[in-house]
Amino acid sequence: MLEILYLDREALVSAGLLDFGKAVEDVESVLKMLAAGEVVMPPKVAIELFFDDGSPKGHLVAMPAYVKPLGVAGVKWAAGFFRNPERGLPHGLDVIVLSDPETGRPLAVMEGALVTAVRTGAVAAVGAKYLAPDGAEVTALIGAGVVGRAAAHALRAALPGLAELRVYDLKREKAEAVAREVGGRVAGSLEEAVRGSDIVVTATTSHSQFVKLGWLKRDCLCVEIGKNELEDAVILRADRVVVDYWEQVKSREWVSLARLWRQGLLPESRVEEIAPIVSRGRLGGGGLRVFSPIGMACEDIVVANRLYREAEKRSLGVRLPLWRATDWL
Amino acid sequence: MLEILYLDREALVSAGLLDFGKAVEDVESVLKMLAAGEVVMPPKVAIELFFDDGSPKGHLVAMPAYVKPLGVAGVKWAAGFFRNPERGLPHGLDVIVLSDPETGRPLAVMEGALVTAVRTGAVAAVGAKYLAPDGAEVTALIGAGVVGRAAAHALRAALPGLAELRVYDLKREKAEAVAREVGGRVAGSLEEAVRGSDIVVTATTSHSQFVKLGWLKRDCLCVEIGKNELEDAVILRADRVVVDYWEQVKSREWVSLARLWRQGLLPESRVEEIAPIVSRGRLGGGGLRVFSPIGMACEDIVVANRLYREAEKRSLGVRLPLWRATDWL
Repeated sequence: MLEILYLDREALVSAGLLDFGKAVEDVESVLKMLAAGEVVMPPKVAIELFFDDGSPKGHLVAMPAYVKPLGVAGVKWAAGFFRNPERGLPHGLDVIVLSDPETGRPLAVMEGALVTAVRTGAVAAVGAKYLAPDGAEVTALIGAGVVGRAAAHALRAALPGLAELRVYDLKREKAEAVAREVGGRVAGSLEEAVRGSDIVVTATTSHSQFVKLGWLKRDCLCVEIGKNELEDAVILRADRVVVDYWEQVKSREWVSLARLWRQGLLPESRVEEIAPIVSRGRLGGGGLRVFSPIGMACEDIVVANRLYREAEKRSLGVRLPLWRATDWL
Repeated sequence: MLEILYLDREALVSAGLLDFGKAVEDVESVLKMLAAGEVVMPPKVAIELFFDDGSPKGHLVAMPAYVKPLGVAGVKWAAGFFRNPERGLPHGLDVIVLSDPETGRPLAVMEGALVTAVRTGAVAAVGAKYLAPDGAEVTALIGAGVVGRAAAHALRAALPGLAELRVYDLKREKAEAVAREVGGRVAGSLEEAVRGSDIVVTATTSHSQFVKLGWLKRDCLCVEIGKNELEDAVILRADRVVVDYWEQVKSREWVSLARLWRQGLLPESRVEEIAPIVSRGRLGGGGLRVFSPIGMACEDIVVANRLYREAEKRSLGVRLPLWRATDWL
């Protein structure tokens, strides 16, 4: 008999999934490992799906990584489907499998959508921690869905000096819920939220490039989780353009940065990666900065691995046989 | 609440995993779909692992595919670790996740190692069915491990005209068990098994290129499952060299065909793929032929999908919640 551990969302929460301080630590530590060459992470592979009229339906993405210092490897099988919310399903649906890198033995299978939201929020917060202009006090969060909500918690965990958190969402009640939960205030409009903020975090599925350069302070960090939320001028005028995995960003056609690069407007030499910055320490000073992470498998694996180890320790989850007796070995 | 179905090996067997006739049909049908452009299958992504001395430890491979006519997508997360048998673990350990291509919703998670063995055996048998020389009657099977055993069953299912099946394994008792199970006979030596055979199927983890050109009949098909079992002369002198997915074969450094291609000895123009051949119909005639499949995700997905549908119909397996009540949606 060979067993794996199955962790549903409840088991993951019991194991500490909503501990955003830990998620921020996880992401910081794995970025340092990445910078040190201790992570093996081939580019993700995507299957793009389309409606009959050729418009995008969604994508399924396989994201493998091996994090050497943690002794764990794994894959996230991630789905993002644009019209799911109309059907009462979340936009993102994910499964994560962890494996022992010594034997390849699968160790755990788990619900991955909330892990994804939490680590994505943590990545935004780590970006804010290392890239925000000196003395940043005011943050705008645009988009109060699952990922925005996670980002709000992670920002609170990562930036103790944050004086004001403004939350905006097209659905006001969502903004209100998140503002209440993290001690923020609801902004009356997008522009009101953004103007005067030191950090602007966008966590939407919009492709409408709604953040205008004219609204931004001279010293400001924009964290673009949704990949098409900043107008081109913001990216083109930024003093620093930071991504997580440039080869990966480049290969996704629908991402603003990739388009600007293909159009010859954003030279590759202007783009830097977050891992070496986290490794060296906070970027001081000010100016206009953009952080546009595409998301990396190692971030999922590091969080998933912590939860798996904790679940093992505390006997959470369900042990399932891969097989019992078998003569096919 | 959102649920997935978990299928362990016992549930898969109850759902028909060991029905080799069906597996052969599955593989034939998905190869026709592939030839018709109805399968989306990006190259697999591999993480290669090494011991401290630089020798290969194993690999973890993410293999996604979307099979349009079946309305299913999925990924296999496949491990192959060379020294596992010394530890009492199988060389291959796999997990398969199936997803709904309309919403990305994960449908099922299942044990994948036996699915892999069965589909790999079925691929070998489909190769034999479409590529064997006219009037082939005698088959040698070298390697009576899990994959060889599956190949023996699949050959019996795919080739009703097969008069003689010779089985050879370094461990004689393994050869005896398989020979008994499929009505074959144990060969006294490697050479004895191969000489005079119309079809030679090698299903080993050996890299020693043990099949010699001098042993082969003029009209003979070699099916090389292990990727390094034929001496170079066999490949270089073959009248037809057939693979499953050339781009994929090319990218795996340790595969004989890829090495010969890199060395400039095997021109790309000599390599053809199996899917169009299956689509057109059996290749008549004779001569020396080599079929060297690397394995494709769509083959796993087609078999896994049949088992999943059958398990759903018959209420096999365990339904697991991804989440129950959650306010993180």
